[in-house]
Amino acid sequence: MLRKILVIGAGKSTSYLLDYFLERAKEEQLHLIIADREPEKIGEELQSHPSCEVIRLDIFEDKARQEAVKDADIVVSMLPPRLHIKVAEDCISYEKHLVTASYVSEEIKGLDEAAKKKGLVFMNEIGLDPGIDHMSAMQIIDRIRANGGKMILFESFTGGLVAPESDDNLWNYKFTWNPRNVVVAGQGGAAKFIQEGTYKYIPYHKLFRRTEFLNIEGYGKFEGYANRDSLKYREAYGLSDALTLYRGTMRRVGFSKAWNIFVQLGMTDDSYIVENSENMSYREFLNLFLPYSPTDSVELKLRHYLKIDQDDIMWEKLLELDLFNPDKTIGLKDASPAQMLQKILEDSWTLTEEDRDMIVMYHKFGFILNGKKRQLDANMVVTGENHSHTAMAKTVGLPVAMAALLILNGKITTPGVQIPIRQEVYEPILKELKEYGVSFKEFETPYLGYNPDSVAI
Amino acid sequence: MLRKILVIGAGKSTSYLLDYFLERAKEEQLHLIIADREPEKIGEELQSHPSCEVIRLDIFEDKARQEAVKDADIVVSMLPPRLHIKVAEDCISYEKHLVTASYVSEEIKGLDEAAKKKGLVFMNEIGLDPGIDHMSAMQIIDRIRANGGKMILFESFTGGLVAPESDDNLWNYKFTWNPRNVVVAGQGGAAKFIQEGTYKYIPYHKLFRRTEFLNIEGYGKFEGYANRDSLKYREAYGLSDALTLYRGTMRRVGFSKAWNIFVQLGMTDDSYIVENSENMSYREFLNLFLPYSPTDSVELKLRHYLKIDQDDIMWEKLLELDLFNPDKTIGLKDASPAQMLQKILEDSWTLTEEDRDMIVMYHKFGFILNGKKRQLDANMVVTGENHSHTAMAKTVGLPVAMAALLILNGKITTPGVQIPIRQEVYEPILKELKEYGVSFKEFETPYLGYNPDSVAI
Repeated sequence: MLRKILVIGAGKSTSYLLDYFLERAKEEQLHLIIADREPEKIGEELQSHPSCEVIRLDIFEDKARQEAVKDADIVVSMLPPRLHIKVAEDCISYEKHLVTASYVSEEIKGLDEAAKKKGLVFMNEIGLDPGIDHMSAMQIIDRIRANGGKMILFESFTGGLVAPESDDNLWNYKFTWNPRNVVVAGQGGAAKFIQEGTYKYIPYHKLFRRTEFLNIEGYGKFEGYANRDSLKYREAYGLSDALTLYRGTMRRVGFSKAWNIFVQLGMTDDSYIVENSENMSYREFLNLFLPYSPTDSVELKLRHYLKIDQDDIMWEKLLELDLFNPDKTIGLKDASPAQMLQKILEDSWTLTEEDRDMIVMYHKFGFILNGKKRQLDANMVVTGENHSHTAMAKTVGLPVAMAALLILNGKITTPGVQIPIRQEVYEPILKELKEYGVSFKEFETPYLGYNPDSVAI
Repeated sequence: MLRKILVIGAGKSTSYLLDYFLERAKEEQLHLIIADREPEKIGEELQSHPSCEVIRLDIFEDKARQEAVKDADIVVSMLPPRLHIKVAEDCISYEKHLVTASYVSEEIKGLDEAAKKKGLVFMNEIGLDPGIDHMSAMQIIDRIRANGGKMILFESFTGGLVAPESDDNLWNYKFTWNPRNVVVAGQGGAAKFIQEGTYKYIPYHKLFRRTEFLNIEGYGKFEGYANRDSLKYREAYGLSDALTLYRGTMRRVGFSKAWNIFVQLGMTDDSYIVENSENMSYREFLNLFLPYSPTDSVELKLRHYLKIDQDDIMWEKLLELDLFNPDKTIGLKDASPAQMLQKILEDSWTLTEEDRDMIVMYHKFGFILNGKKRQLDANMVVTGENHSHTAMAKTVGLPVAMAALLILNGKITTPGVQIPIRQEVYEPILKELKEYGVSFKEFETPYLGYNPDSVAI
């Protein structure tokens, strides 16, 4: 008998996800139902695939949504995070398993007991970050512990970047995901982490000056800046005793120092509307944040204000963005500085049809084994195939699809609202991801950074 | 017949206010009723004054409050701003005039029509800032206009500082008002102002580096940093066409540059609780915001992080606050960084019994007269008499008291919710304030700062 998989929301990260099911449709007896608000945007090869059905669904139409859920054997929600809850409640009502790539919200967490009572698996945070980070970290942490090691340090970094062959601007960066999230990244409060047993707090305006360097063999040097939520998984990972916990975002070296210019100027502020934003030139936008002068140029004022030497590469980065152009206009009505900056950046940082993206992830595990401090690093690089089959779509979509099939086949059975930190989940998925080129390289390295004994004075 | 003045809330700014009424009690036939939550804290000379009555009043007890209002001829509310509304509504019910020194809230503004209908004067913002700033500015603006001038620039600065003879620390600053407001000053969004027709926005983390110098004859140099709300009175002052509008806070030169250290570190953040704040030493508090190092000292890390030379006077300012002390503990449970910083500053910046405070105010008026750009500056300095009779209490309390008496005597009659920008109000009050040594010095100065023609290239 055919098993029906309902995928709600067919956005840009679903190419690999849908392909995964359809490639196995015959062998696994799968029938895929794609429910979307705009089904006409879904490609012809899906529309005409014999194992695939595309339906129009407005998530706010309760009856249609409930019928779709009722008719499925498992539900995969790729909706924006805040919309999952309606689908999740239906899954409780009609006793269906649920898979999402989103963070567990308080609302979803509230369904844990009901899901357990009905024996339903509600798997969340099983994309890239969160997702592959959880699984790869827990696989290594569990192994270290099984060998008798005691975890004392965990650092984890992820970045969505461009592949080396598409890396053709001075920022070594293009938008491979929601540009808005990139522009406002790090806002909303101080970043908090713990280092060698001491809490550390970084205010937003210093975030991009407190980076850590990371090296990936064959790919060169990267940098990481702190996420706000480094302590988020302390309990889930069983790291309450760890002396160092740090989670961050990866960029190419030099990105953060240049990005800091925007932060210092106030251009990433999303909390107020700029007067007359629509007709403002790029140059006028920049001048909003500089002191008035009847004579000095915007260029000189900026150099002086932020102490940028004329031969500093940061300056070239600004020129590359055409930030001083008096003729290009923003063209956005009632826009915040962040929205205006995003518009300027999109001119330069939008992926072309030919561009390929790249996902990098880097973990550091510090532990004590036989009384000695040791460190194991693990990293992953995935490059996109093309414009639609991006590394982002692959690393977000495949774990979701694999988890759904494993649940359907009774290989993942523990019920309740969960994230993929148990062996039952990460072992088969990480193994299968390797076949798709998604794998980690591990190497031991001296526990140097935070080992007082090893530091030259 | 005795006229009854009800003063609700007898906090620290009410010494001059109460004295003003009592000194005139006989001549003006006044009976003063002081209503306070803690009447026992009110001094003996007031308690025993024949024209004064002290009553216990909990503002949330509707009946008692209403009876007190009903019994009065005019009500002066010196309560915290958010509590005025209950009193104001009673004033509408029982048809009493009302005077406060607070900003007009939306709630109070909503009573405008009712007040007008009943012929009641609801006078607000009649303290120092807001208050004396409104009156002194409007007096000069009205005069410039009467002479045929057209206003093109208005800048206004106020500061609560220490008198020269009490100015004995490196910061040239002590807390003369609510310390909390000083620590979080400037937060909550970018400062917005307009300069030569161009909007300017300063993010919080740059606010203390964008100062303007001001000179007051006999008192030396001051600096001003921008308030968030420079455009607030554009309409009220009739300055919609002015090219430059800027409001700021005055400090002694060098304060802002040193204060910026706290801002850069993130120490003024009031949005989160620091783990284990209670038992933390001053030194540990500082180290929260510095990168981890197994070997480097807190001192060296701070110098390097914020690029402070060892012979920089800013360094001495930090030492003076004992910020590096590993033995002094904060002693505040569940405190935010801002609360912890306030605690440290209070060790050094609390006024002694002998200290006298000082209020400074500085206005700049730019205008076109007979086709020529001109500028008039006006400034005011008021120093406190002693610990209880501070310059702050004088400049906040006297205008409130004077306005109340003028209303009572039918000299201020225009009804409705208002601020003191009309001649009927500012003329008599500014004149009377002069008798108390609260007066402005005016002088013409070249319209230089923003006049492109006068700037050397």
